[in-house]
Amino acid sequence: MATSPQGVGGYTEDQLLEGILPLMAGGRDDVLGPGDDAAVLRLDGPPVVTTDALVLGRDWRDDWSTPAQVAAKAVTQNLADIAAMGAVPTSLLCTLLLDPETPVEWVERFAAALGVQSRRYAVSVAGGDLSSAPAGLRAVAITAFGELEGRDPVTRAGARPGDRIAVTGSLGRSAVGLALLLAASSSGQGVDDLPVEALAHHLTPTAPLSQGPVAALAGAGAMIDLSDGLSRDADRVARASGVRLVLEADALAADLNWAENFIARGVARQCVLGGGEEHSLLACFPGEVPPFWRVLGRVEQAGTGEPGVWLDGRPLPVTGWDHFARPPAP
Amino acid sequence: MATSPQGVGGYTEDQLLEGILPLMAGGRDDVLGPGDDAAVLRLDGPPVVTTDALVLGRDWRDDWSTPAQVAAKAVTQNLADIAAMGAVPTSLLCTLLLDPETPVEWVERFAAALGVQSRRYAVSVAGGDLSSAPAGLRAVAITAFGELEGRDPVTRAGARPGDRIAVTGSLGRSAVGLALLLAASSSGQGVDDLPVEALAHHLTPTAPLSQGPVAALAGAGAMIDLSDGLSRDADRVARASGVRLVLEADALAADLNWAENFIARGVARQCVLGGGEEHSLLACFPGEVPPFWRVLGRVEQAGTGEPGVWLDGRPLPVTGWDHFARPPAP
Repeated sequence: MATSPQGVGGYTEDQLLEGILPLMAGGRDDVLGPGDDAAVLRLDGPPVVTTDALVLGRDWRDDWSTPAQVAAKAVTQNLADIAAMGAVPTSLLCTLLLDPETPVEWVERFAAALGVQSRRYAVSVAGGDLSSAPAGLRAVAITAFGELEGRDPVTRAGARPGDRIAVTGSLGRSAVGLALLLAASSSGQGVDDLPVEALAHHLTPTAPLSQGPVAALAGAGAMIDLSDGLSRDADRVARASGVRLVLEADALAADLNWAENFIARGVARQCVLGGGEEHSLLACFPGEVPPFWRVLGRVEQAGTGEPGVWLDGRPLPVTGWDHFARPPAP
Repeated sequence: MATSPQGVGGYTEDQLLEGILPLMAGGRDDVLGPGDDAAVLRLDGPPVVTTDALVLGRDWRDDWSTPAQVAAKAVTQNLADIAAMGAVPTSLLCTLLLDPETPVEWVERFAAALGVQSRRYAVSVAGGDLSSAPAGLRAVAITAFGELEGRDPVTRAGARPGDRIAVTGSLGRSAVGLALLLAASSSGQGVDDLPVEALAHHLTPTAPLSQGPVAALAGAGAMIDLSDGLSRDADRVARASGVRLVLEADALAADLNWAENFIARGVARQCVLGGGEEHSLLACFPGEVPPFWRVLGRVEQAGTGEPGVWLDGRPLPVTGWDHFARPPAP
């Protein structure tokens, strides 16, 4: 095959798997791991499952993100969806679609980082799929699994008037990083000159995974992972629950202040209200709000109006990330 | 966005999901279906899980395959992996990576066919992911789930000397179809002139899914889905079990005869021995071979030699499909 010797096209699937499977070894044992037609998971109760994909050129750029950062992003966004159900992540499957010219080194470094993430979060890498793809294409699709330990899943539909709305984790940090990267890119500025702390959450996201089950135990009636922006994700909770989520501007001050260290005020507001890929958790609590959560507002009846999100006494327009109708760069 | 009005790029993710989710509705209920951060499956015992992706231009061509045929292929190859563990398929997740120019009609027809397949096999479509992708890219990744109903999984590692090797389903039919399509394509011949019965299994594969649990109940010690060719997949069983799989040429005569109706003798042999995407099941039985399975040979000790597959008293070279080192077209 006419590929460079450093490309994955120079190897068979079995050779590649032999090289990367040991690197991926996670922090948990399954009944049966990778290497057969299918894996068999060790799981307590009904499986909680989700899947999310990243595509080169759309969800990451090789000149911005290392393979380890791509792995962190792929794992975090999937495990955050599991945590947002009140479940504990247990396992994942990883599919790689690879242009045969993809450097073997990229794949090895990605696999090693997937192993690091899996041991960190104590999940297993139970298997996956490795497939060649047309020139220019590289994609990572992860399916994640979790267990509820006997609890009911926390959906988006259980917010009730009187609940307090709370968040654990930051707001707008990933979007600030993305905005700085896009601005540097369009002005020809080097990424190395950008402040590291402003890029960290966008490039290597983390999520408060343990707080998902904590919120469930504290009686959260509704919960969502903030992957597409506060306004869009809060709107999803409002619509699923048939209520109004009323946010207080004061509660967003700390996030706005942080963002304004790096970016103009108007853009900072867009990042905090509409920034995607944050992977903080938003939940609605009828009772006490647990530690590490901060109150953003209160759930009210939608009354005769549409369910939705309000801020400062006005309906908040939905501005967050949509996979097809991409908003203009800030 | 500068996309054609018929392309998915003209719609938001939520609009697209609203259109296609009802079409996908499957034949089984979950604890919690699509629409939240994650789904919760109704599953008896430890989950059996597998994932497999198809990429436009690599795994299918739009001028050969309708959206319904792509859906049939994606579902069949995943559910066959579940059946090959002796498990009953229960659910699937579907990820679509779509160039924004992808016609909405393609996505709708794919979704409707996924629903047809899911109702046919009585599995649920529990969720998935919908993501835009760079120009030219369209990929379908499915994750499938199954349950063992209290049985142990049937791996590739349990073949023992004395077992009879048996197959359920055809051999070489998908490869014959592919060979005819490739030949027609390179000679500029129209696909419509090709014999429909020779293309059927390649374009719209089916798999003997119910025979997976049947084989498990009949005591099969090892089983595999024939997705990469008889020689390669039988070799995987031989190596995992540390044995020699000795096939009898006579047992392949019916498959060869069928193939020779459409294709030259030498190519027919390649198709039967090395043709991928067949999704028949190969199993090794220490006791009686159940109905609908035909004996292909016998398991012997590897002795001092390497584990592997033998035919006609000679080692059989591994020729089947490899995702990166693609064999020359027949």
